[in-house]
Amino acid sequence: MDLTALRPVAEKLFADVRELSFDGVGVTRESYGPRESATADLLRRFAEAEGLATETDRAGNLIFTLPDTPADVPTVWCGSHIDSVPQGGNYDGLAGVVAGLLCLIEQARSGVRSPLPLRVPAFRGEESAWFGKAYVGSSALLGKLDHDDLELRQRDSGKTLGDSLQDVGADMEAIRTGQTLFDPSLVRAFLELHIEQGPVMVARQLPVAFVSGIRGNIRHNGIQCIGASGHSGAVPRWLRRDAMFAVADLIMRLDEHWSDLLERGTDLVVTTGMVSTNAAEHATSRIPGQVRFSFEVRSKSIDTLEAFYQLMRAECKAIGRERQVRFEFDRRLITDPATMDPQLCQLLSKIGAERAYPFEVIASGAGHDASMFANAGIPSGMIFVRNQHGSHNPDEAMDIDDFMCGVDVLDQAVREIR
Amino acid sequence: MDLTALRPVAEKLFADVRELSFDGVGVTRESYGPRESATADLLRRFAEAEGLATETDRAGNLIFTLPDTPADVPTVWCGSHIDSVPQGGNYDGLAGVVAGLLCLIEQARSGVRSPLPLRVPAFRGEESAWFGKAYVGSSALLGKLDHDDLELRQRDSGKTLGDSLQDVGADMEAIRTGQTLFDPSLVRAFLELHIEQGPVMVARQLPVAFVSGIRGNIRHNGIQCIGASGHSGAVPRWLRRDAMFAVADLIMRLDEHWSDLLERGTDLVVTTGMVSTNAAEHATSRIPGQVRFSFEVRSKSIDTLEAFYQLMRAECKAIGRERQVRFEFDRRLITDPATMDPQLCQLLSKIGAERAYPFEVIASGAGHDASMFANAGIPSGMIFVRNQHGSHNPDEAMDIDDFMCGVDVLDQAVREIR
Repeated sequence: MDLTALRPVAEKLFADVRELSFDGVGVTRESYGPRESATADLLRRFAEAEGLATETDRAGNLIFTLPDTPADVPTVWCGSHIDSVPQGGNYDGLAGVVAGLLCLIEQARSGVRSPLPLRVPAFRGEESAWFGKAYVGSSALLGKLDHDDLELRQRDSGKTLGDSLQDVGADMEAIRTGQTLFDPSLVRAFLELHIEQGPVMVARQLPVAFVSGIRGNIRHNGIQCIGASGHSGAVPRWLRRDAMFAVADLIMRLDEHWSDLLERGTDLVVTTGMVSTNAAEHATSRIPGQVRFSFEVRSKSIDTLEAFYQLMRAECKAIGRERQVRFEFDRRLITDPATMDPQLCQLLSKIGAERAYPFEVIASGAGHDASMFANAGIPSGMIFVRNQHGSHNPDEAMDIDDFMCGVDVLDQAVREIR
Repeated sequence: MDLTALRPVAEKLFADVRELSFDGVGVTRESYGPRESATADLLRRFAEAEGLATETDRAGNLIFTLPDTPADVPTVWCGSHIDSVPQGGNYDGLAGVVAGLLCLIEQARSGVRSPLPLRVPAFRGEESAWFGKAYVGSSALLGKLDHDDLELRQRDSGKTLGDSLQDVGADMEAIRTGQTLFDPSLVRAFLELHIEQGPVMVARQLPVAFVSGIRGNIRHNGIQCIGASGHSGAVPRWLRRDAMFAVADLIMRLDEHWSDLLERGTDLVVTTGMVSTNAAEHATSRIPGQVRFSFEVRSKSIDTLEAFYQLMRAECKAIGRERQVRFEFDRRLITDPATMDPQLCQLLSKIGAERAYPFEVIASGAGHDASMFANAGIPSGMIFVRNQHGSHNPDEAMDIDDFMCGVDVLDQAVREIR
């Protein structure tokens, strides 16, 4: 199919959503918050003007289809998420939703429908930055939110996730009882187009890539290190219980283990994204008695995740003894690694080769809604689009030419899945 | 002199000031802020009810004297400060002001005046926690505030130090031109009673101690480490520019140098009291691109201070190269170490021995207003009172018996200085 006419449609959609979610630095589309909802409203109005049908699923996500799509036949799903991290970039998530919309518009305009009807979900709540949990919109749909998840609070407003879901029309009774809110046997494939969030495709000059698997992770959003505060001038080193020196010690030990494991070829990244002394009491001349920090380890291997996590816990114990501090852990969150469906990956690769796009099959370091569907037994595939400067920052930059290559592969794949 | 009758006076003053400055956790008396001023008001009313004279000096500090004290004769000063750190303890500073007041009341009640008139200053703005600079009240008096100091802003309100001084009636024109706002040749001695802020006197079972010298310090209140933020899952270790790992690396290098220098007998403490990733953008899944932190080194030796500072700068350069980050430094603040007057220290020791109080001559790890006067050439001395749990925290605990021993030594010293 010739998608040339859809290129300006994509450009305008990206520009319009950027404008409504610009925060002065990057874009901010809070999970279940005002700018995520404004994005959903804008996309809904756009789709309806294009003659598409829209609905809200039982988890509060927005769904686009062609009009008159029957409810009880096998479908192909092609979507992604519409929220962003604070001061993030415009394409992380949104690109996959726009890509799905373009495929629908193409079918609507040409009148040539795909063998299986296409459903385009625009998921809410994918970014963990807001509630401390990722993939909320797809997890709700898959019956994977537990009681503790629903009690999580939005980082700024303090509103619970349960209340937030309720306010966007989710079926709370079904969600609370862990029901799957759709019939998985009717989803023949889940496809997600997403910008690459790392530097690999830029370095290797690949406009598109196809994903073999997705790293899982283990996280704590707020570990407390508790020592004893005191006057910085008056407590000698041997009597100190400095929580900041203890956390710095932990980070450097993790860095050493990480470095050692990489030399042995282990797939691993380690991040302490949030670290802070207690702003209510900290001062230049006060030994910090409390430090709060987040911990995250990611790997394609569940065994590596568990092993590194236990290493972290062991180092906390050792540092606790050596530096007279203690570590208090909040709830541990785990996202399993996921394998993409080999046949779908093969199909995408075949199309990429037919189109003569430079591509490779690579692993995804970041997590995606697709991993939730893959781990629920639904054949899933991902198309990565080249992107400069990574993501989760205002500088992410996707070339629209690369994006249209990705949409081309997606559109063709939808036409070949039966 | 028998000070027994003054013990309940001291207890009531401590209780009343604690009550007005209690913040729910500890006490908070903001430099040039509402609860510091409320403390000054309470003490003024108390002193006037006791028949003492009060005035505000040209730097906005509160001064107590006996009525009819002539302005142009040599005097002995005995005071300390009335502000506290946020969520601090009740005795840090206040004890020295109450001690001076008790000496005045004793003279007023007994009618037996000291050979030289006694002036009791209650300094404002000693704690660096509020404006990022210590000893403001005494520095203003000594003509030691420069233009940059006056532009410093209160951590919460953002009000400048210049405006804050003006609002408590300071002579801003004189302060801006660096004038000394009193005649130093008329101050025969500056004596300060203060709680010990470290654990030494408790460990050695000393109710009082006399100070030989005071540690100086070099500080930065806000160094920025700038790396590059990015998606935690998608950027491999070799491409990371993680500002938090860089700062942790720096802290551990400083800790190693500190440990090495202690083994060689160097007097040194090192503190990073405030460390924080950027709350506007940080997240568990985001590589931190910015960390802000404070740095402080304290020593009795100016050479040690400079050497350790240069070591810190060199490590920042090395880490900058190795981890692809850069460090941006705010203004460097220095407080010189100070030596207490040996004759005053001898006098205090003689009195301590006469009273058979267990005491030692020790160095002060923390800085004090007394160091400002000593470095201005005024003979200065300090009496430390035993105190549990250090200071700059809500748990500081001074025994009133120990305090009255200190007051006894102070009162006698004032009577022997000619």
